[in-house]
This record gives sequence, C-alpha cells and structure tokens, in this order.
Amino acid sequence: MNINFKHIAIIGVGLMGGSFALALKAKGFKGKITGVGRSRKNLIKAKKLGMIDDYTTEYADGVKDADLVLLAVPVGRVEIIVKSISRVLKKGAIVTDVGSVKARIVKDVVPLMPEGVHFVGAHPIAGKECSGITCAAADLYLNARCIVTPVSDTDKKALGKIMRLWKAVGATTTLMGPEEHDLVFGAVSHLPHVAAYALVNGIMKVENSILRHGGRGLRDMTRIALSPPELWRDICSFNRKNILKSLKKFSSSLTHLTRLIEKSDWSGLEKEFRKAKEARQDLE
Amino acid sequence: MNINFKHIAIIGVGLMGGSFALALKAKGFKGKITGVGRSRKNLIKAKKLGMIDDYTTEYADGVKDADLVLLAVPVGRVEIIVKSISRVLKKGAIVTDVGSVKARIVKDVVPLMPEGVHFVGAHPIAGKECSGITCAAADLYLNARCIVTPVSDTDKKALGKIMRLWKAVGATTTLMGPEEHDLVFGAVSHLPHVAAYALVNGIMKVENSILRHGGRGLRDMTRIALSPPELWRDICSFNRKNILKSLKKFSSSLTHLTRLIEKSDWSGLEKEFRKAKEARQDLE
Repeated sequence: MNINFKHIAIIGVGLMGGSFALALKAKGFKGKITGVGRSRKNLIKAKKLGMIDDYTTEYADGVKDADLVLLAVPVGRVEIIVKSISRVLKKGAIVTDVGSVKARIVKDVVPLMPEGVHFVGAHPIAGKECSGITCAAADLYLNARCIVTPVSDTDKKALGKIMRLWKAVGATTTLMGPEEHDLVFGAVSHLPHVAAYALVNGIMKVENSILRHGGRGLRDMTRIALSPPELWRDICSFNRKNILKSLKKFSSSLTHLTRLIEKSDWSGLEKEFRKAKEARQDLE
Repeated sequence: MNINFKHIAIIGVGLMGGSFALALKAKGFKGKITGVGRSRKNLIKAKKLGMIDDYTTEYADGVKDADLVLLAVPVGRVEIIVKSISRVLKKGAIVTDVGSVKARIVKDVVPLMPEGVHFVGAHPIAGKECSGITCAAADLYLNARCIVTPVSDTDKKALGKIMRLWKAVGATTTLMGPEEHDLVFGAVSHLPHVAAYALVNGIMKVENSILRHGGRGLRDMTRIALSPPELWRDICSFNRKNILKSLKKFSSSLTHLTRLIEKSDWSGLEKEFRKAKEARQDLE
C-alpha cells in the first residue's frame, strides 16, 4: 500500500472521515489513526468499530504528532478548526480536506499553514444523504472520483502524496483549479441540491398531502433533499456566486419549458426534452 | 388467480403492456393474450418471449373477441386507437388503460364506448426511463400502486374487475377521480420530469462539457430525463393546466431560495432546506 504517512489524524469522524478511516484499515494501513472531534461518544464508537486507534476531543493534542491531518468537517467549520490547530502542526505535515467547496477553503486555510506545513485541497465525489458515523462504509470511495485542487504554489511533493493517498483508498484522482472546481460543482452538485429542496417545497405548495403519492422518479429526484440542511446552507454560502450563476441558468431553462407549454408549442417542447435526453445519455 | 377474463387484448406490447402480459403469465393466467400493435417485428418478439399467445397488426381483429382490452400506448395515441376499434368491441367487454393522464383520456374515450362496453381508467405508478419490450419485466407492477379513476357513471362491476385485475398482477389499488389524479400526478410525477429535463439543459448552459462530472446525486436527479421525449410531450399537452400550475409553484420555491442566497440570508435558507427535508422524510 502506497501511503507515505505514519500517523493520520482525522478531524470529524462522520460519514466522510469514518469511511476514510475504514478504507485505510481495509487496505491494510499499518500506521496510527487518531480520531479528533467534539463528541467523545462518537469517538468511542469509532474506536469500538475499529476505525481509529486513538481519539481525543482536544484538537491540538490530536494533530500535533500527525504527518497527515484530514479535515472531514462541514465546510463552515474548517477555518476555525485550522486556526485552533495550526500553531502545533508538525514540520513536514500535510493538511487536506474533503470539502465540497474549494476556492474559499484554499483561500482561508493556506495562509494559516506554518512554515514547512502544506495544504492540499481535495473533494472526493462520494457521499450519501445520510450522515454520521453509522453511515460510514469502507467502500464509500471505491471507484469514486476525487478532485484534487492545487494552486500555483502548492508543494509538488505534498500534492503527489495526497493523490497517492486517495488512490490508495480506491478513488481515481483528477486535478482541477479551486475556481474551476467551484464553477463545475456549483452546477453539477450544488445546483441539484438546491433544486431538490425547491422541488419538495414546490410540490408541498401545490397541496400539502400529495408528496406521498410520488413514485420512484420523485423519490430519486428528491433523495438529496434528505441531506443535512446546515451543511448545504454553508456550501451555498461558500460557493454563493457560482450557485447563483447556475440557478439563473436553470431558472431560465425552466422558464423556457414553461413558455413552450403555455404556448402549446409541442414540437418545440419535444425538441428541448430530446436535447436534455441526449446530453444526459453521456452521464452514465 | 382472481381474474374474470378469458381473452385479454393488449394494445401496445412495450414496457407497460409487455410487463403486464409477463405478470399475467407469471401469475398463472390461463386465458388467451393477444398482442396488438403496429410493429410485426415487436409482436413476433413478444410471442417468442412467451408474453402473448397470438398477435395481429390489425387492431379491430385483435380486440373483437376480447373481454378485456388494455390500452398500453402513449396517451397521445389512445383516442385514435379507440376510434378505430370501438365499433367491433364485444358486448360486455371492458376497456382500460395505463396512461399517466386521466381526465382527458376519460373524456375522450368514454363517449366512444358502444352500448354494453365499459371503460375504466387506470394508472399504475410503475415505470422505467427505458422503454420498449426489452425493458418489460414480470415484476414491474409488484407492490406498485395503481390509481383507478372511475367517474360517477362508471359501471361498478367493471370497476371491481379492473381493481381485481391489478391486484392479481401484484399492485395495490387506490381510487381517485380523474381530475384529482391529474392534479396530484401533475405535481408528483409530471413536474419532476419537466424539472429533470430543465436541470440537464440548465447545467449544459453553464458549460457544455461539465455534466460528466456529476456524481450519484445528479445521476439520480436526472435519470427521468432519459424518458421518451415524445411521450412526455404528450403528457404535458394532455395535463397542461395542472403541469403549469405545478411549474408555477416550483418556480416560486426556486425563486425564494435564490433570493435567500442573494441576500445571504443563511438562517432563512437553512429553514427552507429543513422544511423540505422533513417533508421528504415522509416519502419512503
């Protein structure tokens, strides 16, 4: 197993962090994994589940001997946590994350890194609408794509180590600039989440009690509306500009289809449906 | 097996009609099933697959001895087909359908029924984005709900037989008026389809090449955009009023979320996300 780390501290042992720990163990990682978080109960559970070797609720204590620190917390908590740990980070350590927004994280976190400590941002495209340690799974990252987002002055060695790390847990890696990442995932991930929440609320406005009549199509389309509201609130805040841009395009597509239905322009409508179908066929 | 029919003619041996035939056979139906359609090639395939006992491309021939006629064609073709077969329908025969829109179908078809022939509308909530005979499956209707939509002068005996028929192939039945059906499914089925097509087109407008970056969330949300465009064009035409109503509510929910993001009202946004999440939890 091609992992150049001996002591990995995972801050936030939930769905993402817990799955990462499970994957490391499953792949035969022989080093030490320390779980760090606010809830002692959760950390005890993680230890019992064999995810972590050790744990602490003292963030600085947890990371001070680590040569890799994985931030697996909601994007809204990353900066404050890094502020609380940066002074104790070991020289040569690498800090990485799993956040769904990258430009803001990179901008906030890189300046907080002490001399000789490197930050490399990452975003594994994996997740579930259920959250927390009980949803963690050793195969969450298997065959998933992980977007790694270096900037011009990112340390090349650190970047290589982070890419190998994600490959080691089964993911494939893609390099993307943080800004490009946020434009792309603002459209293909953040927009669909906002749309799913809006779809549920819109149907409830038609009539309060009818949602239960939905079939598989509606269930699939609104499953991501089960995602944690506070997490997606923060993602909207951190990627506000790109999400607004995507919302504008979606809203204009929706208005266009609505106008065609209003005008009973059925051949125009079919053409738009067909365009969408053809584009969608490239996705799977 | 509680089926009061001896000869069932299925017009349209595709996903819905083919699955119905397979389910009947799987449940031990001993009567005769005649497949009726435009494509001889498709009907030959259906016979080879053991779905049907006999077939014809002459609609009137196919239905004249049947005591049940199942219309399993796109809603846009129902009326013209019924016009071409109504004069030969056997006294005592029952005609039913599987269309996603009910009020217009009932309005078009009921007046075409000759003396002694009864129409009972139905809409099984089952389907796949893939269409055609190769997607048909004996378990498509297993545990599915089938909405049966009688009107005030629907023959009670015929209604009972249609309900037993759907139960026999594994579905549960719910009674609903055609107008109520179209309001409900305009919101929980037709709206999501239009929204899925619009979502793909909107993302393509952000940038042409980025759709492929989507993860499971986007794939699930846009799967129904793979549905046949001409089918959904007709559904939009047949349920125009209700779909426009639903689109208006959805659009207003989407605009509301957009405004909150524009105003950086994060607690307001979280509240809306939470409202949607809680409503969605009742769906599964």
